Amino acid sequence: MEIGIVVGRLTATRKDENLVGTKLLITQPIDVDGSHRSHPIVTVDTVGAGVGEKVIYVLGSTATNATPKKNAPIDAAIVGIIDSIDC
Amino acid sequence: MEIGIVVGRLTATRKDENLVGTKLLITQPIDVDGSHRSHPIVTVDTVGAGVGEKVIYVLGSTATNATPKKNAPIDAAIVGIIDSIDC
Amino acid sequence: MEIGIVVGRLTATRKDENLVGTKLLITQPIDVDGSHRSHPIVTVDTVGAGVGEKVIYVLGSTATNATPKKNAPIDAAIVGIIDSIDC
Amino acid sequence: MEIGIVVGRLTATRKDENLVGTKLLITQPIDVDGSHRSHPIVTVDTVGAGVGEKVIYVLGSTATNATPKKNAPIDAAIVGIIDSIDC
Amino acid sequence: MEIGIVVGRLTATRKDENLVGTKLLITQPIDVDGSHRSHPIVTVDTVGAGVGEKVIYVLGSTATNATPKKNAPIDAAIVGIIDSIDC
Repeated sequence: MEIGIVVGRLTATRKDENLVGTKLLITQPIDVDGSHRSHPIVTVDTVGAGVGEKVIYVLGSTATNATPKKNAPIDAAIVGIIDSIDC
Repeated sequence: MEIGIVVGRLTATRKDENLVGTKLLITQPIDVDGSHRSHPIVTVDTVGAGVGEKVIYVLGSTATNATPKKNAPIDAAIVGIIDSIDC
Repeated sequence: MEIGIVVGRLTATRKDENLVGTKLLITQPIDVDGSHRSHPIVTVDTVGAGVGEKVIYVLGSTATNATPKKNAPIDAAIVGIIDSIDC
Repeated sequence: MEIGIVVGRLTATRKDENLVGTKLLITQPIDVDGSHRSHPIVTVDTVGAGVGEKVIYVLGSTATNATPKKNAPIDAAIVGIIDSIDC
Repeated sequence: MEIGIVVGRLTATRKDENLVGTKLLITQPIDVDGSHRSHPIVTVDTVGAGVGEKVIYVLGSTATNATPKKNAPIDAAIVGIIDSIDC
């Protein structure tokens, strides 16, 4: 899984029916020291994350395991809100 | 999922039978500020997107979840047309 | 999916039994303007592509959807021969 | 699979229910000569690895094969502690 | 699939039970001209490859298709020993 920080929100009225009702957050990948890396992606939130929170997100087909709709076209989901990173 | 902008269309008469009837659009990955990144890819359109529209697309095996033919050889599908990005 | 051009062919007598009988082509990823990017990969041909032809190829587990042997160890398959790209 | 070194630990109280009880370690990808490459990721530990140990980790959906909860939203798991690399 | 050259071997006594009995080889990705690219990875050998041999390897979940244990945590497997590359 990867570490990121929630930086915004995305809305799309016209979307796949299996995405209806999902909360789409913009997540910026970060390194363990908080520095930004790569580019922001669209993640489905499943744990109640908010802008500014450091999160863990999963990529690929197992992202659907984090959502109620197992056949949703999802490849990225927030699966935890970070308390601490001890490195 | 990723953010992109539809920049064109692709046609291929000789193709896998499970791609017959699908609309193949060329999507350019973009950052949240609209700047281009990486390279254009071929995406199956499932929400009626058109050239110039900003979209969300899913990558990998769950892209097949966005299409009626679940056993199609698809790894990228447009799943939403973006209304707004608040960052 | 990605755009590529077939640049060669690969033979391997000692291979996984589920690859026996498959045609293994070397495909060079290209951008929409035809310029080369990344590095050549090994793709299973499923639509009768030949050297010099511009093709669409799929990556990852759904590549097996393009072949008769669904449990073959395949992660890249040519799924269409490009007629035109309108960008 | 990839080679890495465990560099830390991550805690997240608010997380997906299928991640409850899993040990989340920060793993730094390394080359065969031990030099760091890419960025640290979050891995589920399944073999009792500790900080400072060189490990093998698997990426993608098969990472769930390493854990008891097959429908957990996991895309990276430590699956071995390295004894030796002979190159 | 990708082209590589076997450059070594890895041993790990403490590992996932489904990796017990598998032969773990270090494979260096190469371009069609033999030049090294990217970084060495850990691959499961399924065709009897040896150090110095040019091989084809598959990445991702379909790598498990190359092994007897379909629920093994594997994301890279050697699936062929190259005879020739004609580019």
